[in-house]
Amino acid sequence: MSRVDGERLATYLAERIPLTEAMQVRIDSWDGRTLTASAPLEANRNDKATAFGGSLYSLALLSGWGLLMLRLWDMNLSADVVIHKAEAEYLAPVNGRLVARCRLDDENEWQAFIARLQRKGRARLALTARVDTGEQRAFELRAQFVAVLA
Amino acid sequence: MSRVDGERLATYLAERIPLTEAMQVRIDSWDGRTLTASAPLEANRNDKATAFGGSLYSLALLSGWGLLMLRLWDMNLSADVVIHKAEAEYLAPVNGRLVARCRLDDENEWQAFIARLQRKGRARLALTARVDTGEQRAFELRAQFVAVLA
Repeated sequence: MSRVDGERLATYLAERIPLTEAMQVRIDSWDGRTLTASAPLEANRNDKATAFGGSLYSLALLSGWGLLMLRLWDMNLSADVVIHKAEAEYLAPVNGRLVARCRLDDENEWQAFIARLQRKGRARLALTARVDTGEQRAFELRAQFVAVLA
Repeated sequence: MSRVDGERLATYLAERIPLTEAMQVRIDSWDGRTLTASAPLEANRNDKATAFGGSLYSLALLSGWGLLMLRLWDMNLSADVVIHKAEAEYLAPVNGRLVARCRLDDENEWQAFIARLQRKGRARLALTARVDTGEQRAFELRAQFVAVLA
């Protein structure tokens, strides 16, 4: 079980990344392995009255980045985490609330990432975040993050 | 020379995509071939006080999408344009105003895109948008858009 909760991430975002306030991002849940973040359609709509592509990307990015930050905080590791590369795929329009999920699938990969971060002061991790709408996959983000020990 | 100007795009964004207002996006120039859009760092900063990755992506996306819309308006073609896939690469932090540029390099490709759109009612076009900081490339977005005749 995780010692830090999603509330800490929500406060961090609100204080440090103003666009997350404009997007009205909420951290819905964090169980130590899966992070769910969401935002209302109204603040994030496009000219077709569906979710703006930049909002879907940003929310998915934040769910992956947030997962990494929460995990690092949980270990009392202080690191900057930045996005290095990402591939985004838009599969279906989103007509309601935007809900992004990122799950850490592989604990061995995490352990290797942490070992490298502690040894080298710098390490990479790839994460996939998804937005579903009903039963359908609407958006997928494959993101590569870089963490640097502070 | 283009008959429509960037002002029409600026108004369209402000009215239809609320996040562009929160980002304080401006259409700086449009000459019929290159679109430049920008946004202040303050509204788009992250926890490192550099440009938020989601803002860089959104601004670059809007510069490509806006180029397509302006070109279609110029031909009096009414079409919905959506992003289908994108690859984003973050190369250096952005410490000041975010400035994204998208240029239509290949007029033959454009003609083929328009011919297909008019024949099939649907066509794809790939565009690359970039954010530079000083002499340095800071961000690159390779985006594939789909246009559907309205």
